[in-house]
Amino acid sequence: MIAGIVARNAELAAMGGVRVLVPPGDDMALVELAGRRVLCAADQVIEHRHWDAGTPLELVARKALARNVSDIAAMAGVPSCALATAAFAADAREADAEAIAEGFRRAGREFRCPVVGGDVGMHAAAGAPLVISVSVLAEPGPSGRVVTRAGAHPGDLLCVTGRLGNAWGAAGTGRHLSFVPRTAEALELVRILGDRLHAMIDISDGLAVDARHLAQSSGCSVEVDAAALPCAQGAAWQSALGAGEDYELAFACEGMPPAEACGTPVTVVGRFIDRQPPWVTAIVDGTRLDAGNLGWEHGLPERAP
Amino acid sequence: MIAGIVARNAELAAMGGVRVLVPPGDDMALVELAGRRVLCAADQVIEHRHWDAGTPLELVARKALARNVSDIAAMAGVPSCALATAAFAADAREADAEAIAEGFRRAGREFRCPVVGGDVGMHAAAGAPLVISVSVLAEPGPSGRVVTRAGAHPGDLLCVTGRLGNAWGAAGTGRHLSFVPRTAEALELVRILGDRLHAMIDISDGLAVDARHLAQSSGCSVEVDAAALPCAQGAAWQSALGAGEDYELAFACEGMPPAEACGTPVTVVGRFIDRQPPWVTAIVDGTRLDAGNLGWEHGLPERAP
Repeated sequence: MIAGIVARNAELAAMGGVRVLVPPGDDMALVELAGRRVLCAADQVIEHRHWDAGTPLELVARKALARNVSDIAAMAGVPSCALATAAFAADAREADAEAIAEGFRRAGREFRCPVVGGDVGMHAAAGAPLVISVSVLAEPGPSGRVVTRAGAHPGDLLCVTGRLGNAWGAAGTGRHLSFVPRTAEALELVRILGDRLHAMIDISDGLAVDARHLAQSSGCSVEVDAAALPCAQGAAWQSALGAGEDYELAFACEGMPPAEACGTPVTVVGRFIDRQPPWVTAIVDGTRLDAGNLGWEHGLPERAP
Repeated sequence: MIAGIVARNAELAAMGGVRVLVPPGDDMALVELAGRRVLCAADQVIEHRHWDAGTPLELVARKALARNVSDIAAMAGVPSCALATAAFAADAREADAEAIAEGFRRAGREFRCPVVGGDVGMHAAAGAPLVISVSVLAEPGPSGRVVTRAGAHPGDLLCVTGRLGNAWGAAGTGRHLSFVPRTAEALELVRILGDRLHAMIDISDGLAVDARHLAQSSGCSVEVDAAALPCAQGAAWQSALGAGEDYELAFACEGMPPAEACGTPVTVVGRFIDRQPPWVTAIVDGTRLDAGNLGWEHGLPERAP
C-alpha cells in the first residue's frame, strides 16, 4: 500500500492559499474560498482495477462521478460541479471518449453535478490502462452543517443506509455501476437527527474498514453485530461487512435513527464503545472477531465476495 | 486526437448544480459557488508523455501542479488550493509516493496552492504508466477581473511574457520542469493595462496553437512576426513558435504593453487582424506561412525542438 500524497494537516497552514477548515483525512476537504465554505475532493478509477473488461465506458464514467458524489453525501454536502481528466491508451477509439463524455453528461444530470472542465490525454503506449480522475466541489446543505468522520461517542449507535455486500456482482456487473449516491438521504438525516448525528462516512472500502475510520477519527472503538447487517441479495455477512463498493452511508447516531431516510432503509448494526483494541469487533454467533482489517482500502474488492 | 469529455456549453445549464459563468473551452471554468465566483480546472501528466524516464518524481509533481497554476495565471486568478490523484504501477515503491508528496508540498508552498485532498490508487499491472491528475481552485484577483481567451479585436497587439522555445531541453531536463507560473505577472498586467487587456492564454501547446485559440475564441485572425519572437537560449523561431511547454502568457493588448511585468520581459510578437483564413500566419523573412497547425495539442512536444 502506497501512502498518501496529500500534505499533512499541520503543514497546510504554512503553505498559503486557501484556509482549510476540515483537512485531508476526511471524505472531503472543507476550505474557505472567496469567504465561503466549499467542500472539495478527488478520486479516480483505473482500468483493470475498478471495472472489468467489457464494462460499457458510459457506466465507468458514471461510477467515476458517482464515487465522488458519494463523498459529498458523506459530508452532507450539496453537489455543485465536477472536473474530470481521462488518460486514454494510444490506440483508444474516438468512440471511447464519446462514451465517457456521454456517461458524464447523463450522470452529471442525474446527480446535478455537471463536469465543467477537464482534460483528455493519451498514453504513449497502445493498450495502456485508462485512468479517469474526477474532482468534485460541493456546498454545505441548508442547515450549514458539515458532518465529518470525527465525533462519534461511546454509546452511539452505528447505523447504515440501504443494503450491503455483493456490490461488485457477477463479472463486475453489480451495484457498483448503478448505485445512487446518498446525498438526499444524508441531508434528510441531518434534518431529522440534528445534533444527534455525530459522524458519517460513505462505505467504499467495506463497512469494517469504514467503521474503523469513524472509530479512529473519533477516538472510539466499535462493535458490529453480524446478524444485524442488512445484506444485499446474494450477500453473506462477510460480504456485507468487508466487500466494499457499497457506497451507502455509515453514521454514528445518539439514540435511535429513523427507520428510513428518503425511502431508503436505515439499520442499526452496532455500537461505539470506549476506545480499546481492536478498533472494530464483529460479533458473530456470540463470538468476537477482530474485523478492522476486513475489507479494502483504495483497492479492488475480491471479485467473488 | 480524442475529443473532449466535458459537456458542451449549451448542455450545462440544463444539468443542475452550479451556475457556469465561463464554460468549458477556456483555460478554466468560472462558476458561481456559494454565491461567489470561483475558477476551477483540471489537468494531468502521464508517464512517457509528459516526462522522460529518470526525471525525479518531485519535479514531475511540481510540473503537474505548475501546469494547473499556469491556467490560473491565464485567467488572472489567484490560486486557492489543489486536489490530486495518482495512479501508480502495481510495483511502485513507497519512495515514489513520498517523492510526489514532497514535490506537491514544495510546489504548493511555492505557488501558495496547497494540495488539500486527493487519492492514491494502484494499477493492476506492474510497470503501468504513472498518471497524476491535478485540479485547482482559484479566486478572481483584487480587481475582480477574469480574463478569458475571447475578446481580442483586430488591431490588438499579440504579446508574450518571457522567452519561448526549447522548454523541453536536452533529455527532457529543460524549463518544463522548473518554470514559475506567471500568476503575479498576470495580475500586474490586469492592473497596468486595465480594459486594454482584451484576452489571455498560457502557452502550453506552443505559441502558434495558443495564439490560434485566442484568435478563434475572439473571431479574429492573428499574424506573428517570427523575427520578433523572444527565443530562449538554444531555440530557433520554429521552436519558439511551435514547441510548447513554455507556460508563458500570450495576450491581446490594445496599444503598447509595458516592457515588463514583475521583472519578466513582455514582447510584442504580432497583431490581430480581421478574420480571414488562416487563423495564424507567421511572417518569416517577408514570407507568409500558415502556422495554425504548428505545435501540439495536449500532447508531447518533440524532444528536440
